[in-house]
Amino acid sequence: MSKLTVIAEPGKQEIVITRMFDAPRELLFTVMTDPQHVPHWWGPRGMTTIVDKMDVRHGGVWRFVHRTPDGEESGFRGVYHRVAPNEQIVQTFEWEGMPGHISLETMTLEDDNGRTRLRAVAVYQSIADRDGMLGSGMEGGMAETYDRLEELAAELLRVAV
Amino acid sequence: MSKLTVIAEPGKQEIVITRMFDAPRELLFTVMTDPQHVPHWWGPRGMTTIVDKMDVRHGGVWRFVHRTPDGEESGFRGVYHRVAPNEQIVQTFEWEGMPGHISLETMTLEDDNGRTRLRAVAVYQSIADRDGMLGSGMEGGMAETYDRLEELAAELLRVAV
Repeated sequence: MSKLTVIAEPGKQEIVITRMFDAPRELLFTVMTDPQHVPHWWGPRGMTTIVDKMDVRHGGVWRFVHRTPDGEESGFRGVYHRVAPNEQIVQTFEWEGMPGHISLETMTLEDDNGRTRLRAVAVYQSIADRDGMLGSGMEGGMAETYDRLEELAAELLRVAV
Repeated sequence: MSKLTVIAEPGKQEIVITRMFDAPRELLFTVMTDPQHVPHWWGPRGMTTIVDKMDVRHGGVWRFVHRTPDGEESGFRGVYHRVAPNEQIVQTFEWEGMPGHISLETMTLEDDNGRTRLRAVAVYQSIADRDGMLGSGMEGGMAETYDRLEELAAELLRVAV
């Protein structure tokens, strides 16, 4: 069973994701904002993820590329609009396959009895855009991404001990 | 009476603005995207508007400053996420007085029997953010801004004849 909770209320244009992590908030934030770590957790396991740009500051641009085993590439990009260390990242998100369809993502980390609660709210330009994202298999991809993030954090903790 | 229609449905996190202009679409788009014109229409009449940055292309940054007659300054900024000439601009919007509160704006221009219909959809991170914007007197400011835009377009048309 996935550890992910995905809420998409009818009539709204947002998706709210929550997930608990067995990892300290500071470590999760570091893993999420370090270009060296991104290829090891961002996206499904079958993909190669390439960090093209990742300038983690207000106004900085990020661009990641997914490459399938067949060599097919697909780009994702956005701009950081808030970077509050260990607390919150606000960024835009665009899949280059559908340019001009932008979402605005607010990702917040909170302590919860020694664990960390991640809350990610993605807001879309329309309900149609939101529902299109839900229909694209986004939920499975997010579940896998966050599983990988937790595994990587656990591995880094193990190595650090 | 204002020519502006502002719709903010309960339970949603968007504001939808529509307004008809007695001006060709191409002229409106030019006026909206030219840094030389911006000080003459963006914001209320009592303010001085300074264009600090305005790089009208995908990923380009804009930053405008309002200065009151007393010399008090307030900054607004964002990033262009789509620029389709004469058709659409998608951009983020942030008032520097409330950093981290971002909205995503989609502005579309359409021909309508020799006039132009402007439709602007602003999506907020939450309903609270949306309602905060409505409570800030945004509607009066937008009405004045678009009145000035129409006046400037009319003046440019008159000069061009």
